[in-house]
Amino acid sequence: MLLYNSAVSGNCYKVRLLLAQLGLPYETVDVSVVDRSNRQQLLGDLNPALRVPTLVLDDGRPLGESNAILWYFGEGTDFVPGDRYERARTLQWMFFEQYSHEPYLAVVRFWLAYSGTPEKFADKIPARMKGGYAALDAMEQHLAERSFFVGERYTIADIALYAYTHVAHEGEFDLDPYAAIRAWLERVAAQSGHVAIDA
Amino acid sequence: MLLYNSAVSGNCYKVRLLLAQLGLPYETVDVSVVDRSNRQQLLGDLNPALRVPTLVLDDGRPLGESNAILWYFGEGTDFVPGDRYERARTLQWMFFEQYSHEPYLAVVRFWLAYSGTPEKFADKIPARMKGGYAALDAMEQHLAERSFFVGERYTIADIALYAYTHVAHEGEFDLDPYAAIRAWLERVAAQSGHVAIDA
Repeated sequence: MLLYNSAVSGNCYKVRLLLAQLGLPYETVDVSVVDRSNRQQLLGDLNPALRVPTLVLDDGRPLGESNAILWYFGEGTDFVPGDRYERARTLQWMFFEQYSHEPYLAVVRFWLAYSGTPEKFADKIPARMKGGYAALDAMEQHLAERSFFVGERYTIADIALYAYTHVAHEGEFDLDPYAAIRAWLERVAAQSGHVAIDA
Repeated sequence: MLLYNSAVSGNCYKVRLLLAQLGLPYETVDVSVVDRSNRQQLLGDLNPALRVPTLVLDDGRPLGESNAILWYFGEGTDFVPGDRYERARTLQWMFFEQYSHEPYLAVVRFWLAYSGTPEKFADKIPARMKGGYAALDAMEQHLAERSFFVGERYTIADIALYAYTHVAHEGEFDLDPYAAIRAWLERVAAQSGHVAIDA
C-alpha cells in the first residue's frame, strides 16, 4: 500500500497510528502541506479533494479522508465496535472531530507552528481559538464519566480525536483545565503498539 | 423516536429524507438555528456538540451528527453498500461533505438567506464562495463518469451531498456550469420515497 503522507499532519498520523497498531506495512510519498502547487499532479486522479492522507490499496484503488481510511482498516477488528449503536457513536465522534475540532485545533496549530507566516493569520486566530476550546469543552464533558469515547474501550474514535488534541499545545491551547482529556491522552498513548506522531 | 430538528437545516433534512425513504416514524422538536440561546438547556445532556440534528432513539439513547445518524439507519439496508471498499468510499464522501462542502455551501446559504443579517457577513463571503466552488468542482469531476457517488447506486453518500447542493442557489451559487451535478440532482430527486426539504 502507498500512503500520500505529511509528517506533521495529524490527519495522516491517524492512519500511520492505526496501521502500526494493526501491523500492516505500507510505503509513503511525502506531500507538502505548505506548498500545495503539485497537489493536482500528485492526487488529481486519486482524490478529487486533493488532500492527504490519500491511500492507494495494493490493488490500485484509492481511498481519501483520514476517518474513512480508519473505518476501512478498523471494521472487523477490535478498533471498531460490533454493536450497531456503538458503531454510529464512533462515527458521531469522528464527524465531530472533522467538523467541530480539526478546523480549530489543527488550523491554529498549522498557522502558528508550521505555516512559516504566523503573523498573516493573527486576525483570524481568536475566533478559531474560541472554537477549539468549545470542542475541548465538549470532549471534557463526555470524558468526565468515561475512559474512552465509545463503549469504554479504545476505538478509532479515540485515534481520530487524539491526533490533533495531543499536539494542541503547538497551537498554544492550554490543556491544564482539562483533567479528563489529559488522563484520556495518557490512556491512548499507553495502548499496545502506539507510535508517536514523529516516530 | 424524537428528532431535534430545524426545518431549514440541510443536515436535519438528510435525516428526514432517509427516515421517509425507510418508512420510519418519528416526532420532532423544533430548534432555532438563529437564536441558539437555549441549546444547552435543550441538548446539553444529549449531544455535547449542541447541534441539530440530534436524534433520541425509542430506548432514550441519543445520537448526534447527521451523517452518523444516516449510517445508523442505513447499515443493513440498500442505502449502505455491503462491500468493504464501497462502505469506506461512502464514508469518504460523507467526510468530504462535512469538511469541504458544508462549511462553504451551507454557511453562505445561511448567511445570505436565513441569518436575517446578511450584511454582517459580507467580508467573509468571497472566501467561502471560493471553497464552495472547489467542492462543486470535486463533485463534478467525480460525477462526470458516474450516476451516483458510490457503486453506481443511490446511497447515504448521495443523501449527505444532496442536502446542501440542491439548495446552493439560496447561497447564490451558480450550478449552470455543473452539468453532471445537475443531472445527479435530478436522479436523486427521482428516487422512490423522496421528500422535499420543505415537505
